[in-house]
Amino acid sequence: MRPNPFQLKHQDPSGARRGQLNLSRGTLQTPAFMPVGTAAAVKALTPEQVEGTGAELILANTYHLALQPGHELIRKMGGLHSFMAWKRPILTDSGGFQVFSLPKKQVDEGGVTFEFQKGGTPMKLSPETSMEIQESLGSDIAMVFDECLPFPCPYDQAAKSIDRTYRWEARCQSAHQREDQHLFGIVQGSVYEDLRVRSAEQIMSLDFDGYAIGGVSVGEGLDLLKKVVNWTAPILPRDRARYLMGVGLPEDILESVERGIDMFDCVIPTRYARGGTLFTSRGRIRIEHRRYRRDQYPIDHTCDCSTCRTFSRGYLRHLFQAKEILGQVLCSIHNLRFYQRLMARIREAIEQDRFAETKRQILEELSAHAPSAR
Amino acid sequence: MRPNPFQLKHQDPSGARRGQLNLSRGTLQTPAFMPVGTAAAVKALTPEQVEGTGAELILANTYHLALQPGHELIRKMGGLHSFMAWKRPILTDSGGFQVFSLPKKQVDEGGVTFEFQKGGTPMKLSPETSMEIQESLGSDIAMVFDECLPFPCPYDQAAKSIDRTYRWEARCQSAHQREDQHLFGIVQGSVYEDLRVRSAEQIMSLDFDGYAIGGVSVGEGLDLLKKVVNWTAPILPRDRARYLMGVGLPEDILESVERGIDMFDCVIPTRYARGGTLFTSRGRIRIEHRRYRRDQYPIDHTCDCSTCRTFSRGYLRHLFQAKEILGQVLCSIHNLRFYQRLMARIREAIEQDRFAETKRQILEELSAHAPSAR
Repeated sequence: MRPNPFQLKHQDPSGARRGQLNLSRGTLQTPAFMPVGTAAAVKALTPEQVEGTGAELILANTYHLALQPGHELIRKMGGLHSFMAWKRPILTDSGGFQVFSLPKKQVDEGGVTFEFQKGGTPMKLSPETSMEIQESLGSDIAMVFDECLPFPCPYDQAAKSIDRTYRWEARCQSAHQREDQHLFGIVQGSVYEDLRVRSAEQIMSLDFDGYAIGGVSVGEGLDLLKKVVNWTAPILPRDRARYLMGVGLPEDILESVERGIDMFDCVIPTRYARGGTLFTSRGRIRIEHRRYRRDQYPIDHTCDCSTCRTFSRGYLRHLFQAKEILGQVLCSIHNLRFYQRLMARIREAIEQDRFAETKRQILEELSAHAPSAR
Repeated sequence: MRPNPFQLKHQDPSGARRGQLNLSRGTLQTPAFMPVGTAAAVKALTPEQVEGTGAELILANTYHLALQPGHELIRKMGGLHSFMAWKRPILTDSGGFQVFSLPKKQVDEGGVTFEFQKGGTPMKLSPETSMEIQESLGSDIAMVFDECLPFPCPYDQAAKSIDRTYRWEARCQSAHQREDQHLFGIVQGSVYEDLRVRSAEQIMSLDFDGYAIGGVSVGEGLDLLKKVVNWTAPILPRDRARYLMGVGLPEDILESVERGIDMFDCVIPTRYARGGTLFTSRGRIRIEHRRYRRDQYPIDHTCDCSTCRTFSRGYLRHLFQAKEILGQVLCSIHNLRFYQRLMARIREAIEQDRFAETKRQILEELSAHAPSAR
């Protein structure tokens, strides 16, 4: 038996939880945000730069790594940490979300069969192969392989699906071997309260090291996110980590923390950064806007990231105009640091029993108008 | 009068020179290689990463910066150093090379008129405007605006051209004002010995702070490069810096150092790196080659760059395969460090009067077969 890695340290009157995850490669303060390093790299950044933003845990994608360079290769290279030179903890997803997004696939009780390249040999991802791949990668936290539903999804299909997800997660539990890797279950159930509850009960009966809520990441909106978390989080075991997969915008994170979520991952900060959309304490800005042409101020004067300490908005705008990669690098650093500072602020507020107030404050800041040039 | 920034410290029996350039923002050991930061950024790298490779001076392009974001903007933002957060010295070219490469342009005694954007207002670059732009940028070393010839170029055209170049450089000399910015002259003359000699004499009569040799960068081959440097370098003043513009491959640098050149710039290390071609002490390698798939060794086991200290060839190959920007970043660091280590080795050899021997050794290493995977 692996010990439960989660330790609940404090709960705020609002319901927000302050905890920590004790993993062999490092201790993680929660609520926590994980940058996404899909292909064994947080896009555009060196591990040192990612560490510099304060990230204590990153996510890597099983599906992408299994296809390229291949999990066997990564295992032979000493595992994912060694391969990508990231010393802190890594969480791997199961690959389920990606294979269910493929246009051409065949799903049966065994798993999902799909073509990697047009005309290539069909590949199969199943509960057992997902466990095998994640064990080869050697992540600190592995995720179970679940059935991911389209959105929207009819009730009958969702009802059938959670039973299969239950059977698949039980198979993951049986197949999983590594004692040095935690395994998290995933609750599904689409937008139906009774299915979410039934799925949570089924999955909890398998006794995982932590619990994730799946199926709310893909732009279904904040109202639905709140509903699903409201139905699910309260019935999850109080003493286990709760992870809301693929979420989200700062607003989504605030609402979810209030409902008792501990962990988040999302491509938004890095993807937005590469496109020139930056988070600031006075709302989002589009750095390519003409108003920043001669702007000598940093992206956010309250930010302590290496980009804000060194470069002006005017320079960053120029880098985007000139299509210089460096613009994407510097803006990725800023957005990731913004997210880590957001989480630090959330954690501090919870410790001081004033999360609700801090949440209000932050929401106000987020909806502020973008700062003007001068 | 600005003081001559160059100080010749030692000359090796082969003719190679060991010197230093004393600039207000830092002292530069020569022979020196300048990374190219065309649009106020050394492609893909932060100033910190560039500094980490050991670069003491970088080159920025007048033409590109004048068009975007504009030199007036950069001046208002506190000058180029402040704009791009590079504290060490910067050399700017004159823009001549770029405007003469444009397909549509009109050249007369005044300067070169060209269209920036199709249908846009015609712009003119002249000796006077080039000086004005470079003074706005505030580089430590400015280059004169010369007439750049096509290659090959008939004798009569080249002969006429060096006289115009002489008149233009004299106009640069008159127009140039900044006392805190050195101005280097450029010798032209295409592939004709008598024209190279005449151009050198004309330009020397103007008494510049340093002398560049132009027109040998664009792939004319090593034999021609040797000839042109042989004709020109010996007649340049012994006590002034000699800069071979746009050169080159390590082999080109070695031959030119032996012929008394002190300074170099070239896009090769960064451009090759972004394309996955890496310099090593055992020849060049193509990192995307299948042989590096499972290669756990660094690019070059003799290299002390942050990439070689941290990442394997197998990981770098994967980054290129996965089209991750990080691959370009990490390989750019390595290639620039390779060039700086090459220059350091050259400088040390000159100090110890064994440049010829070191050159032979390095040439042997450069032509070695690429290392195999295991």
